[in-house]
Amino acid sequence: MDELELIDLLRNRFSPENQKVLKGIGDDAAVIGAYPQLFLYTTDMMIEGIHFDLSFITPFQLGFKLVARNVSDIFAMGGEPEFLLLNLCLPEGTERDFVEKLLDGIEECIRKYRIDLIGGDFSRSPQNIFLSATLTGVTSSPILRSGARPGDRIYVTGTLGDAACGLEILKRQVKLEEEIKYPLIKKALMPEPMPLHKRVKDIHAMIDISDGLCLDLWRLCEQSKVGAIIFEEKLPLSRELLNLSKILHMDPLTFALSGGEDYELLFTADKITGIEGITEIGRITEEDGLWITGKNGEKRPLKPEGFVHKT
Amino acid sequence: MDELELIDLLRNRFSPENQKVLKGIGDDAAVIGAYPQLFLYTTDMMIEGIHFDLSFITPFQLGFKLVARNVSDIFAMGGEPEFLLLNLCLPEGTERDFVEKLLDGIEECIRKYRIDLIGGDFSRSPQNIFLSATLTGVTSSPILRSGARPGDRIYVTGTLGDAACGLEILKRQVKLEEEIKYPLIKKALMPEPMPLHKRVKDIHAMIDISDGLCLDLWRLCEQSKVGAIIFEEKLPLSRELLNLSKILHMDPLTFALSGGEDYELLFTADKITGIEGITEIGRITEEDGLWITGKNGEKRPLKPEGFVHKT
Repeated sequence: MDELELIDLLRNRFSPENQKVLKGIGDDAAVIGAYPQLFLYTTDMMIEGIHFDLSFITPFQLGFKLVARNVSDIFAMGGEPEFLLLNLCLPEGTERDFVEKLLDGIEECIRKYRIDLIGGDFSRSPQNIFLSATLTGVTSSPILRSGARPGDRIYVTGTLGDAACGLEILKRQVKLEEEIKYPLIKKALMPEPMPLHKRVKDIHAMIDISDGLCLDLWRLCEQSKVGAIIFEEKLPLSRELLNLSKILHMDPLTFALSGGEDYELLFTADKITGIEGITEIGRITEEDGLWITGKNGEKRPLKPEGFVHKT
Repeated sequence: MDELELIDLLRNRFSPENQKVLKGIGDDAAVIGAYPQLFLYTTDMMIEGIHFDLSFITPFQLGFKLVARNVSDIFAMGGEPEFLLLNLCLPEGTERDFVEKLLDGIEECIRKYRIDLIGGDFSRSPQNIFLSATLTGVTSSPILRSGARPGDRIYVTGTLGDAACGLEILKRQVKLEEEIKYPLIKKALMPEPMPLHKRVKDIHAMIDISDGLCLDLWRLCEQSKVGAIIFEEKLPLSRELLNLSKILHMDPLTFALSGGEDYELLFTADKITGIEGITEIGRITEEDGLWITGKNGEKRPLKPEGFVHKT
């Protein structure tokens, strides 16, 4: 049973009865309330040995990322983050200094995004560190995954694949000068999601790319009952990614398409102008399925691969 | 560093800036909004090896209790539960049947309390089961821990110590007929919190007794800047608790005062009538400190002992 099956199971079993639930399970955040005052709710976990490894990430970065992952979900709905609840589960003997630095990272992130911490729970852990966070947000016009229409252009913010490449460098313990690897490693360990403030009303559908472009685009298409085609040569790849992929002997496309951890936004709209830092990477199609066209125009199917939890 | 130190640390570091935060960290739930429409938020964890042992609790009971613990927090604020977010972190190889039964228990509890599940996160676990839940609620008149006044009478709902005694029976694997031990074991494994619907406006302060009477009364007194005296002979002890404590060779008072897991409500008020199933157990005093008077009127200090997480 994997994450996607479980989410389907939950969605089918627990269809909300309260009329205030405008969107329950199955988007980046739940949407609750009545127009124009809508509330957003999202929750996320970070588990030692699954989502992070303390030999790579500092407690400060860990605290920051725990919050930032949830911020990305609120931004993906076109919302502003508001209130945070934390669950911290730490092994016996965790040093006070570790806890302080974890809280420093959390504080840095909540100040950056003007979030208030309003509650939490704390427990001893039998072994690994378990962290979870629930973040609320507000919006007057939520952007769902389900709004994409055939003919829409597909845009992404920032560059793709950097975080996954940074993580690979850390895992392989590649010896490189700090300034070469730092930009990618920082994206892997301390992502700083950016909202789309401008032209939000022109956006039809949106999702954050935390599990990789392919998988998250597939999710958006599923919800919108459409397909998509991606133009390989248009994918925004950073100079750092291109350089370091060479050193790692890996295809930068693999990082960009299915690496995950990018915390960039993918959205669809009619032709859009006036937003900096976005790239048009493809089109929404009426026909089902994901496709990618290469440099010479050849078309191949794109598998929805990415980070899926299995038990 | 224990749970209480951490909560103090969090409260001091993260004092909310948003004027919508009427009560942040430090009560059973956070209170957000503006009168008369107030929102409540609480979050809670259940970790295998810390909060539960699968040799005692079934997945159904586990799912039920995960939600019920949070419901108790919302009731302790004088609120009605509304929306639930879940985090499920299960070891690789967890059987589908286990997941289904866990969800059955969650469903049973959310139906009982008319809650809607609106979101969640799912992950593989490296070892133990880690569950957390965030519950929202609504109220027009929140009851804080900080409202107790000298001279108030102290009331509790239900009976005390049953759950802790039930847990002890399970741990020691005491061989007893099912009908004798079942009522206490059920309270330990599948608590069913009850709200106080009547006379809520007359209540000055309230808390749920999830960590034991002594510790939770101490918390309420701390927040209200008062003390309290408990009358030993007035503590509501069930016939089952008295019988089984004898079999276990344990003092029923130990279970009632510091056993924890009761999920009953403790509240203070002027003399109150017309609520069934409550017992007056003591008085709030102007002077600091917790005291208990025995059958012969002798007074001894009551230590704030109960369930506190340490790392």
